[in-house]
Amino acid sequence: MSAPVLALVGATGAVGTVMIDIINTRSTVPWGEIRLIASPRSAGKKINVRGQDLTVIALSPEAFDGVDIAMFDVPDEVSAEWAPIAAERGAVAIDNSGAFRMDADVPLVVPEVNADQINNRPRGIISNPNCTTLSMMASLGALHREFELKELVVASYQAASGGGQAAIDRLYAEISALAGKEVGVVAGDVRQTLEAAGLPISDSPFPAPLALNVVPWAGSLKDDGWTSEELKVRNEARKILGIPDLKVSATCVRVPVVTTHSLSVHATFAREVTVEAAHKIFEEQPSIVLVDDPAAKRFPTPADMVGEDPTYVGRVRQALDFPNTLDFFVCGDNLRKGAALNTYEVAEELAKRL
Amino acid sequence: MSAPVLALVGATGAVGTVMIDIINTRSTVPWGEIRLIASPRSAGKKINVRGQDLTVIALSPEAFDGVDIAMFDVPDEVSAEWAPIAAERGAVAIDNSGAFRMDADVPLVVPEVNADQINNRPRGIISNPNCTTLSMMASLGALHREFELKELVVASYQAASGGGQAAIDRLYAEISALAGKEVGVVAGDVRQTLEAAGLPISDSPFPAPLALNVVPWAGSLKDDGWTSEELKVRNEARKILGIPDLKVSATCVRVPVVTTHSLSVHATFAREVTVEAAHKIFEEQPSIVLVDDPAAKRFPTPADMVGEDPTYVGRVRQALDFPNTLDFFVCGDNLRKGAALNTYEVAEELAKRL
Repeated sequence: MSAPVLALVGATGAVGTVMIDIINTRSTVPWGEIRLIASPRSAGKKINVRGQDLTVIALSPEAFDGVDIAMFDVPDEVSAEWAPIAAERGAVAIDNSGAFRMDADVPLVVPEVNADQINNRPRGIISNPNCTTLSMMASLGALHREFELKELVVASYQAASGGGQAAIDRLYAEISALAGKEVGVVAGDVRQTLEAAGLPISDSPFPAPLALNVVPWAGSLKDDGWTSEELKVRNEARKILGIPDLKVSATCVRVPVVTTHSLSVHATFAREVTVEAAHKIFEEQPSIVLVDDPAAKRFPTPADMVGEDPTYVGRVRQALDFPNTLDFFVCGDNLRKGAALNTYEVAEELAKRL
Repeated sequence: MSAPVLALVGATGAVGTVMIDIINTRSTVPWGEIRLIASPRSAGKKINVRGQDLTVIALSPEAFDGVDIAMFDVPDEVSAEWAPIAAERGAVAIDNSGAFRMDADVPLVVPEVNADQINNRPRGIISNPNCTTLSMMASLGALHREFELKELVVASYQAASGGGQAAIDRLYAEISALAGKEVGVVAGDVRQTLEAAGLPISDSPFPAPLALNVVPWAGSLKDDGWTSEELKVRNEARKILGIPDLKVSATCVRVPVVTTHSLSVHATFAREVTVEAAHKIFEEQPSIVLVDDPAAKRFPTPADMVGEDPTYVGRVRQALDFPNTLDFFVCGDNLRKGAALNTYEVAEELAKRL
C-alpha cells in the first residue's frame, strides 16, 4: 500500500505532546499524511511535526476519512464515543484510554509481549494498557516466556504526572510552598503549611499532601476497598500475558515524583529462576535496560530514568524463602512507554501489517 | 524495690532527643534518678527532664553504677562495647542499635507482641527492633495471634530520618534547591540541578537524589543483592513473632518523607481472614489506629501521622487471588514507635518486673 495516513487525536494534551516528540524523533515508519486532531477549542493551533507546521483540526467523523491509523490520547468518554467512529470510517483506532481495555473484542497490546494480538481486532480498535501495568510488562513478559508466571505481588511508587498536568503543577506548587520550612515532623504540619500558603487539599487532584508524603491511593474506589488502578494492574496483566488465572495483589501508592512510575515486584514462576538467568533475559530485551550493580550503588531511580524510552530494571534478587521467585524494582516513564511510546509502537507494528 | 534508676545513653542524639520528649510526657513509671549519658564532647550539657535541668555525664563504666535500666540510643559499635559494661555494672541494657538483635541470648522485644521475652535475658541485654520492622510489628503481631502468619511480602516507603539528622538536613536542602524549578522531566535533571546548587550526590547520605525521587536502597549490601535493611525485616520479624520459618521477601525503598516509615504489606495466614475480622483486631489493639474509610478518602499517610505514638493501618483488603491473605498499608513514626518509644515501653515493662 501507499504510505499510511496517521492521525493523532488529543494532539494538544499532555500525552499528545509527548507523542509529537516521539513522531519527530523516530523514523521507523514513512508515514504519508500526519493529521492532528483535537477538541474544537484547540482547532487552528499550529504544531511543528517532522519539520512542517501542521494545523490542528477539530474532532469530527469526517476528520477520519482517509486515515489508516488513528491514535487516541483523550479521556475515556471521548475515546468511548469516537474510537468506534474512527473505525467505521476505515481507520484502525489505537486507544490509550481505559474505555476498551477489558473488551473481549479489543486486544490489549504491548508489542514486545503480544504483538501477535494486533491482527485480532474485530472492532477495529486496539487498546493500550494503563501506565502502571505497562511499566512492568516488558520485564514480566520476557520472564514469563522463559519461566511461566504464576503469581505477582506488586507495590507501586507512582508519579504525579499520572494525574495529568494539573497534578504536576500541584506537586511543583507544594514543593515551593514547603521549601525552607522544617515540616514533616508533627502530624498535619505539611497539610497546615500548604493551607497557609493558599494550597488547601480540597483544591488538589490528590486526596492528601503529596510533597514530603506518600499517598496510598490512585484511581477510584471499587469493590471491597480496591482501587481502579489496583484492579487494572491485575486484570490488564492477565489479559496482556494471556494468563487468565494469574494471581495478583497490587497496592498503588502515589509518591512525590514528577514523572516515571516505579514498582516493587515479587514474581513467582512455574519453573526455577536465578538472578543470572533473569539478568541475561533482561539484557537481551531491547526495550529493557538492566541497572543492577548494587556494590557500585547502581539501581534504577525514577528521576534518573525519566524521559527515556526503555524500562529500567534493577535490584534483582532471588527470594530467600519463596521457591521460583524473583524480587526486583522497575522504573518506566509513564508518559512514554507508559502511554505515548507504547501506542506509537503499536502503530509501527500495525503499519507493517497494513 | 525503691524507685528504679533510669539511664539514657545517647541523650543528645536524634533518637535521644525524642526519648527525652517521651520521658517528659509519659508518667507511667515513678523513676527515681534519671541519668543522662553521652560522649565526652556532650558532657556538661544541660537538658530539662521532668522539670529539672540535668547535666549530661560522659560515658564511663562508673556512669552505670546504681543504674537499674540503661537505654542505649547510640551507633552499633558503641552499643556493642558499652551495653555489656552496663550489664556487668548491674543495669539491664535496652539497646536500640543493631548490635545484639540476632544474638540468641538477647531477646528482641515489642511489648504488645512478645513482652514475655523480657525476662529471658541471660546477658542482661534486651534489644529493640529496627524501625522498619517495628512499623508493622504491632499489626502483624495482632493478626498472627488470631490467624497464624505464614508468609510476608513487604515493600517499604522509608523516611529520610532513618538516616539521622544529616539525612533530614539533606532532604530539606534538596527540596529548597529544587523549589520553583520544573525538574524531574528529563533523565538526570534533578541530579544536575542539585549539583549546580552545590549539593552533589557525593556529599549526600543517600546514593541518589531523594527529593522528587525514590531510591530503592537502605542500609548496606549483603549477600545476593539483598540489603541489610531487607534482611533485618526478615530476620527480626521471624524472631519477634517466634516463627523461625516465616517466609519473607522485603524490598526497602527510601522516599522523600521527613519522618514516618510506611509499608505495603501482603500477609498470608494459616487460617481464613476477612477484612471485618482484621478491622476488629486492629480496633482492639491500643497501639494501633485504624484509618480505613476509602469512600471518604481516609487512609494513613506518613505526613498526617508523624510524631504520633500508635501505628496507623488502612487500605485493608482481602487478596482477590491468594487464600487467607490480606493486603494493607501501615505508617509508623520511625523515631517514636520505630525507636525511642518502643525502647521506653520495654523499660516500662521491665520496671514492673524489677
